[in-house]
Amino acid sequence: MLQKTNRLTLVEQVALQMERQIESGKWAVGMRIPAEPELMVELNVSRNTLREAIRALIHAGLLKTKQGDGTYVCSSSALGVVLQKRIMRSDMLQTLEVRHALEREGAHLAAQRRTDDEARELLLQLERWEGAAARGDMDGIVTEDIRLHQGIIAASHNEILIELYNHIADASQDSITSLTRYEANADFLEMHRQLVEAIVDQDADRAVATVHRYIAESKAVLEVKGGEQL
Amino acid sequence: MLQKTNRLTLVEQVALQMERQIESGKWAVGMRIPAEPELMVELNVSRNTLREAIRALIHAGLLKTKQGDGTYVCSSSALGVVLQKRIMRSDMLQTLEVRHALEREGAHLAAQRRTDDEARELLLQLERWEGAAARGDMDGIVTEDIRLHQGIIAASHNEILIELYNHIADASQDSITSLTRYEANADFLEMHRQLVEAIVDQDADRAVATVHRYIAESKAVLEVKGGEQL
Repeated sequence: MLQKTNRLTLVEQVALQMERQIESGKWAVGMRIPAEPELMVELNVSRNTLREAIRALIHAGLLKTKQGDGTYVCSSSALGVVLQKRIMRSDMLQTLEVRHALEREGAHLAAQRRTDDEARELLLQLERWEGAAARGDMDGIVTEDIRLHQGIIAASHNEILIELYNHIADASQDSITSLTRYEANADFLEMHRQLVEAIVDQDADRAVATVHRYIAESKAVLEVKGGEQL
Repeated sequence: MLQKTNRLTLVEQVALQMERQIESGKWAVGMRIPAEPELMVELNVSRNTLREAIRALIHAGLLKTKQGDGTYVCSSSALGVVLQKRIMRSDMLQTLEVRHALEREGAHLAAQRRTDDEARELLLQLERWEGAAARGDMDGIVTEDIRLHQGIIAASHNEILIELYNHIADASQDSITSLTRYEANADFLEMHRQLVEAIVDQDADRAVATVHRYIAESKAVLEVKGGEQL
């Protein structure tokens, strides 16, 4: 009885060990994992055990086999993969609302916890965004906007919030990109400046109030544009 | 080349089919899934393919094998399982902050979208909670508190928000239960009455402001009690 339980757990243990290699970045996304014989020696397991563990990670969306070319890391996080699947089944408004929930809390916590370095970096990031806007560089605006929001969330110093936000942002990037193209006007820019300034001033209430305003604006844009091809 | 790709995909397809049975509740949590020979016929696949798919779902945390007794459904959602793992690695404050982010957005959307039936049910649920408080029934307070928050989130009509909230609430239930024991005073009850009334009145700003106040209170309790055994 005990032996059988252990045999079952072995696959799990091997899968978990490989998952940790991936989540820690030692096996980076895009990398080919070591060949079977090497892993069998390193992990001290049979070929069957190893293959089962690899299959489990393929199903979890972390690994991908290219026929005749080995097995590659294709995602760094099981949470990211399931959230991605979940977001794909959802409409854009629902995804936007969840992003906003996390952005609002992120702004609130960032105002309370940002370090001086983070405050400086957020102001610099805002200037990069304003620079892209001044040049009329739409791709630049989208990129710098995403970076600004990731910077704010990072300054919340809440690891779960950061992970959830980044995975959801990744999964909904295409639709958000389209939305940003419609939003990138002077008002929207000004609201983001106010948001960053509130965080720099450590004024959590003002930060939340500002997020609240651009959320209302985003949803209004989505309502108008939602029916069209975003 | 195509065949090899198909062969790989077959395990994935079988796993996905079984995942859908589980997520839809046709294979409910606690149920033993049909025996191998039956599934092989039903899905028209070999024993090896079936076993690999089952292993993948075991790794995903959806199935569990009891030696000599078949395979059982142990969770209904892959998202729930990864979130649970993630929450287990986090401290209580971080988890609470994510819950609050979702509760704030949930209250805001519930005020805008609650049906009349949902408004009535929220008021009834509040009375159940107040009843438990009047009786000094601490277990009852905890149960009715959880139900009240789930009811509010449900009235947001945002499926991703509901799923994320319920999974995170499940994963953090023990710690939250301890926290509720410290919070269950007249003030806290009154704030929840105001929250429900704001949702009934369809006043989103007031709902959010009230969530904001009980969050501040919860975090203050956690700061005082966090060092002790919660």
